[in-house]
Amino acid sequence: MNKLLSCGIVAAAGLAFSVSSACAADSDLQAIMKARGLTEKDILAAAKTYQPSGKKDDYIVFSSGGQSGQVMVYGVPSMRIYKYIGVFTPEPWQGYGYDEESKAILKSGAIRGKQITWGDTHHPALTEKNGEYVGDYLFINDKANPRIAVINLHDFETTQIVVNPIVKSEHGGSFITPNSEYVIEAAQYAAPLDNGYHSIDEYESAYRGAVTFWKFDYPKGKIDEKASFSLELPPYWQDLSDAGKGESFGWAFTNSINSEMYTGGIEKGLPPFEAGASRNDTDYLHIYNWQILEKLAQDKKNYMEINGHRVVTIDAAVKAGALFLIPEPKSPHGVDVTPDGRYIVIGGKLDTHATVYDFKKIKNLIDKKEFAGTDPYGIPVLDMAKSLQGQVELGLGPLHNSFDEKDGIIYTSLYVDSQIVKWDYKNLKVLDRINVHYNIGHLDTMEGKSSKPKGKYAIALDKLSIDRFNPVGPLHPQNHQLIDIAGSKMELLYDMPIPLGEPHDVVSIAASKLKPATTYAMGTNSRTGKESPFATLAGQERVERNGKNVTVYATMIRSHINPEHIEVNKGDNVTIHLTNLERAQDETHGFTVDLYNIHASLEPGKTATVNFVADEEGVFPYYCTEFCSALHLEMMGYLLVKDPNKKYESAKASKLKTLSPEALKAEYDKVIATNKATDEVIQSVVTYLKEKHYEKYPKVKELVTDALDQYGKIPEVKAKADEAYKKGDVNGAILWEYQVWQYMVKTADVGLRAKNNLAKEIATPMSPAAAKGEEAYLKGGCNGCHVIGQVSSGPDLTGVLLRHENGEKWVFDFIKDPAKFYGDEYIKSMIDYFNLRMPNQHMSDQEIKDIIEYLKWIDENAGM
Amino acid sequence: MNKLLSCGIVAAAGLAFSVSSACAADSDLQAIMKARGLTEKDILAAAKTYQPSGKKDDYIVFSSGGQSGQVMVYGVPSMRIYKYIGVFTPEPWQGYGYDEESKAILKSGAIRGKQITWGDTHHPALTEKNGEYVGDYLFINDKANPRIAVINLHDFETTQIVVNPIVKSEHGGSFITPNSEYVIEAAQYAAPLDNGYHSIDEYESAYRGAVTFWKFDYPKGKIDEKASFSLELPPYWQDLSDAGKGESFGWAFTNSINSEMYTGGIEKGLPPFEAGASRNDTDYLHIYNWQILEKLAQDKKNYMEINGHRVVTIDAAVKAGALFLIPEPKSPHGVDVTPDGRYIVIGGKLDTHATVYDFKKIKNLIDKKEFAGTDPYGIPVLDMAKSLQGQVELGLGPLHNSFDEKDGIIYTSLYVDSQIVKWDYKNLKVLDRINVHYNIGHLDTMEGKSSKPKGKYAIALDKLSIDRFNPVGPLHPQNHQLIDIAGSKMELLYDMPIPLGEPHDVVSIAASKLKPATTYAMGTNSRTGKESPFATLAGQERVERNGKNVTVYATMIRSHINPEHIEVNKGDNVTIHLTNLERAQDETHGFTVDLYNIHASLEPGKTATVNFVADEEGVFPYYCTEFCSALHLEMMGYLLVKDPNKKYESAKASKLKTLSPEALKAEYDKVIATNKATDEVIQSVVTYLKEKHYEKYPKVKELVTDALDQYGKIPEVKAKADEAYKKGDVNGAILWEYQVWQYMVKTADVGLRAKNNLAKEIATPMSPAAAKGEEAYLKGGCNGCHVIGQVSSGPDLTGVLLRHENGEKWVFDFIKDPAKFYGDEYIKSMIDYFNLRMPNQHMSDQEIKDIIEYLKWIDENAGM
Repeated sequence: MNKLLSCGIVAAAGLAFSVSSACAADSDLQAIMKARGLTEKDILAAAKTYQPSGKKDDYIVFSSGGQSGQVMVYGVPSMRIYKYIGVFTPEPWQGYGYDEESKAILKSGAIRGKQITWGDTHHPALTEKNGEYVGDYLFINDKANPRIAVINLHDFETTQIVVNPIVKSEHGGSFITPNSEYVIEAAQYAAPLDNGYHSIDEYESAYRGAVTFWKFDYPKGKIDEKASFSLELPPYWQDLSDAGKGESFGWAFTNSINSEMYTGGIEKGLPPFEAGASRNDTDYLHIYNWQILEKLAQDKKNYMEINGHRVVTIDAAVKAGALFLIPEPKSPHGVDVTPDGRYIVIGGKLDTHATVYDFKKIKNLIDKKEFAGTDPYGIPVLDMAKSLQGQVELGLGPLHNSFDEKDGIIYTSLYVDSQIVKWDYKNLKVLDRINVHYNIGHLDTMEGKSSKPKGKYAIALDKLSIDRFNPVGPLHPQNHQLIDIAGSKMELLYDMPIPLGEPHDVVSIAASKLKPATTYAMGTNSRTGKESPFATLAGQERVERNGKNVTVYATMIRSHINPEHIEVNKGDNVTIHLTNLERAQDETHGFTVDLYNIHASLEPGKTATVNFVADEEGVFPYYCTEFCSALHLEMMGYLLVKDPNKKYESAKASKLKTLSPEALKAEYDKVIATNKATDEVIQSVVTYLKEKHYEKYPKVKELVTDALDQYGKIPEVKAKADEAYKKGDVNGAILWEYQVWQYMVKTADVGLRAKNNLAKEIATPMSPAAAKGEEAYLKGGCNGCHVIGQVSSGPDLTGVLLRHENGEKWVFDFIKDPAKFYGDEYIKSMIDYFNLRMPNQHMSDQEIKDIIEYLKWIDENAGM
Repeated sequence: MNKLLSCGIVAAAGLAFSVSSACAADSDLQAIMKARGLTEKDILAAAKTYQPSGKKDDYIVFSSGGQSGQVMVYGVPSMRIYKYIGVFTPEPWQGYGYDEESKAILKSGAIRGKQITWGDTHHPALTEKNGEYVGDYLFINDKANPRIAVINLHDFETTQIVVNPIVKSEHGGSFITPNSEYVIEAAQYAAPLDNGYHSIDEYESAYRGAVTFWKFDYPKGKIDEKASFSLELPPYWQDLSDAGKGESFGWAFTNSINSEMYTGGIEKGLPPFEAGASRNDTDYLHIYNWQILEKLAQDKKNYMEINGHRVVTIDAAVKAGALFLIPEPKSPHGVDVTPDGRYIVIGGKLDTHATVYDFKKIKNLIDKKEFAGTDPYGIPVLDMAKSLQGQVELGLGPLHNSFDEKDGIIYTSLYVDSQIVKWDYKNLKVLDRINVHYNIGHLDTMEGKSSKPKGKYAIALDKLSIDRFNPVGPLHPQNHQLIDIAGSKMELLYDMPIPLGEPHDVVSIAASKLKPATTYAMGTNSRTGKESPFATLAGQERVERNGKNVTVYATMIRSHINPEHIEVNKGDNVTIHLTNLERAQDETHGFTVDLYNIHASLEPGKTATVNFVADEEGVFPYYCTEFCSALHLEMMGYLLVKDPNKKYESAKASKLKTLSPEALKAEYDKVIATNKATDEVIQSVVTYLKEKHYEKYPKVKELVTDALDQYGKIPEVKAKADEAYKKGDVNGAILWEYQVWQYMVKTADVGLRAKNNLAKEIATPMSPAAAKGEEAYLKGGCNGCHVIGQVSSGPDLTGVLLRHENGEKWVFDFIKDPAKFYGDEYIKSMIDYFNLRMPNQHMSDQEIKDIIEYLKWIDENAGM
């Protein structure tokens, strides 16, 4: 059934050569498919997801890292992970939790004075404007230790962690109101809101749920803790939440499990929570109005103050018409407001239906004060049937929803059935379903929970992978599956193992909406976004001592750290401020000192600080931990820690040979010659770049700027060399000349990359004939002996058409029948030189003609 | 030049319909290529790397995680990351550093009593037999804080960390001798071997390098620290190393940088290290014989004891003929012994050549005691020219090497030129080169440094990615590029961003050589591999109190934790031993308690322990952190911490409604009915499974075993329900019946997955015609209304051929011209029922015939 490979059919039918030649790539594909056991469908899926080198993804997905406590960033459709962002768990690569600036962030996440070094991240959320995603900030919650973190998408770094002052567990965060007014966080397991002990027997009276409204100060990019407040809720276990928008703007929705208020007790011979909490056919959807609540929170009579935080009481909220309940299907999980804000869709995970509520009907009941009753805490309960748009039977274990760009279309995950169902929430009918592998939790469509979903792809967050991947031990990766939803039928495209954590939920955004920086303004503290008071420029490096406090102002640049020696006394409190002086993107330096458990990642322009008490005597190397340049291993120094109470005897000096003045002079002459030759190479590159107007190509220009920056450092060093030489210090002069050479090597490194990029930018496009020629050249194995641009086992073919009179004819004839030429004087000398004779490759005339076109193209682009 | 799409050409030539129909998939591919801007080359690369759902990779790559301190595991050719293994840095998802068993491992990595919570991992190495890789254990070093970790590939967990007792920095580890006798670790930055302070002015006399030989006890899977020893070396900065094999067996090779012994001082106005350390044209390759050295280490006169560790002196090694030097090209990086052990290849990163040493010549010089001189420390220096096989000019910045399966073929990375060069080290010529993006460090070919390299793919570990990926802030991902090396010309296949850390080196192994477990024997401590003394089986759950020590023996199983309440006094030292009672693979449970900064990952069968001092009063939920089952949110409990010095008053009990006896009876009847209905579904699945002989399909059997395991828990719970009912406790009976239902849901969850898997296993393969029919069915949009196996917007088509007399003809005619049938009684009733008329889809006769074949296939497989 391999219809893709119609070439095979055509060739079998004995059609013309030109067609079967056109089939070369096809037959390659056929061979690969056969060898790898791929179907046509696989090839189409591969074509839909593969990203060639340098091609960018259309969507960026921010995924909770689950119990890793981090956030994961990946691309769609390639499903390649671009970054893990350190959030609640220290991450040394980023220096997160290993430098002082980031330690301050983690410290702000301490609860009751306890430093927490992990998190159970659940629901990422992006800033919104009019319900559409804005790529400025990302929020993520910690279920285990109720906290919310803010990540600045300018540099993908965590800049704030706030601790929930009243709840002891949370799940329904973080959810954003449509203009990022509030970040909403809903509790999970009910507990006393104060920090005291209350017996489980007093569950109904002393335990409570809550939602917290974190006020987001957009211009500052920070949650304003003082301006934030909470709403007291009954001790149902609040679960997922969503904010209203459009006609439901101002309202928010939080569902719940265990509205049975069961308190467990398997150890006492009682049925476990799972039995008691799933007893009722319905739980409660909480409906509340944050615009009314924020006004209530202004008046002391409406709130309790618990742990310094305002908590609007159930009574006040009920009285103000700001809090209602509606029965919702058994043990629900997802609650999702439709893009237009009109409907609210809920999957009851122990109910086979999805339930669609109509906010118009809800609002109508509220406005008419038409209630079916109240719950035990006096909250008005709306009639479920009267609030419904309707219900649709989806299958076993419906959990979460995400929306399509097409109006009325929604996708729902089925945990038990391991499926995604596509259905129509307006016309209440199922349209399609697809199997996933296995046990899907959340799902996402592109910008699928914003007011303008983009459709295109769905991602299934499968909790179990079981047999999908190569085995890596008892702890399996999760599986995120990419599904094409552009057509009428969903199609599985890609299985992506999750190497770290159990991502709970994701949020996706068009890549074009993100505009992260690639470098920092010189001397930036990345955690505050402001200039660090400890920023150190070249020439400002110094060590300051104040009693037992030693402060080092250090710089890093390809390929040295300044200073290279730091000598302190045992017990000194050592603070090292580091500034990366680089301006070129991706020129990150890392910094660590042996034993002292510190690490900083210094991206270009960043200033970061490490601190430790040098409580152990000895010699401790420090070094750059990023492979930043050819000489990165030499980018190091020594911390020397002396015991001030000890007397040290000098070791006997080893008497090593020193160089004679003649040898020194010879070495000096040699390094001068080397530097001259290297400079000539650099100048030739510079000439090339200038002639080809490198400044017209932004990416190339950036590289040239970097190269010239390195080159610009030479005169100062050269002056030192000359001065030493003048003083008769030939050894010193030699060393400084080597430093000149180091700068030249770095100039050449970046300069060559610039040249190659420029050559690519300005290369003549290949004609179809030349491209065929290149292929024939490669397939013919010509490259086995002839390497373009250099002499290998055969001569360089650059310029071969010009080396011979009537070059094209000569080359054609030679390829056609090389043996005829073996007697020819020139060819004889070549055979002697290479000790090889050009073989007859039995090329067709057309192939030879194409190769000649290819050789012409080479000549046109020679020297690039 | 889009030659792949010859269908286009054929179709344009107006060939027969059957060919253009065969081109359907081709035209899809053409559309995707156009939309995504893909070339033919891209499609071939995609086809070579794409893995359809469930397909396994051929090779597994273990990559150092760089400064993340972890090990990364990914697959080739898919380049998907399967796992990060926690090694030197705590990792909460795995419970690594958050449970007691793993804390003990991390604690063993403390240096001078200091707990280190990160590492700069560099060189992973696999156990070897006869120089071939064995997938039993993996070793990885920490450059920053010299340590080696052992990872057990039985479960991909770190089981040992050993601290180097003498060196303060290391780079040239870990390298394995050919039968895993020793794990070799070479120092980097020279420092005093003792822990004392020594002035930098005494560098030559008091600072030293070293190599450490860690004895590996294979049966125990542990490094034997007592049986290990080191070799003192001059204060050159030792760098990469490799062990000899074949004819060089017994020897090992370590190169060096800064044999100049330059000591830096930029802060004092001296040239920096990078200048002084790159002064000489050559550095020193160290050659030593570990078989002789291990004998020397048996006799006190040959070694110093430093920090309780034996260090064989330079003098003893020289005297015994176990240590030599050879000049090697300027500032070298990689040193690699050829698969046969005959040659040693070194890239001098400031030399444009690769240098090939011939061990035969080296051995001959050693045997003849023909030395060119000695170094300042008295070590014999061999003549470089006399040791050489030869040199080949490769380009700028040659670093590392990896070997091909073809004899004599080697691949070398060029850092400055950003290239991989393929060359022949026997005939000393360059064969091919390919650009990489950018600044490549290490590279690897499949099993490329073993004695039996497999070739096939090369991986370029590019240190800079610059413009390759979607931007994610100033800290860029690294780029691992996959290259096809099977042909004569290297071809770039895939760019893989590295989301975490800067992987320094990788080692690859055929996936078939790894046989990790998927579950543990019940009650296993995974860090020791032995049964935990704290293993707890069902029914053994208990809380033991001993003064302030409270020990909890708990179990976890879908979906409850036993116990569900733990009550302790403030200040109690709480230890919770957790056993996961599951036997089904991938059924992992996690465990945490709010606030107390602990987390355990419990894979099936594992026992792990968390410990904390309950120093804060209050109510702290604990829960399962893995989405293990539909009711996983209900898998929780409460830790209640009471202050023994406080008097608590009972809160006023809320008076909530209780159910009437009639309502209770009604609910009881309802749950009994629900359970009966659910059981019927289960029984139908069981019948299906038995009839189809599920036991013949191992994967299905595993699932059924798990399902029946869940089902088997029902009688015990059912008995409790019945007993409660008999006693008149209807409420209790209801709750236990809900627990019965929970077990049924779990049985159904796994049972349905088993059924689906079985259906796939036994489904009739589709004929080509049926497959075409399915495609026509989907393309025609038939699935918009007809969903196979269920009634949707149109009737279920299962059995449609049987529902009509002369079914095939009827269906053909109906699809061909539905309007003709609108008056037909049966069709009229259908139109009424669905409120939709079957439209004319203008299918060709062939398409309709194919669809009928598809419908036949559906009927054959109905009920699966």
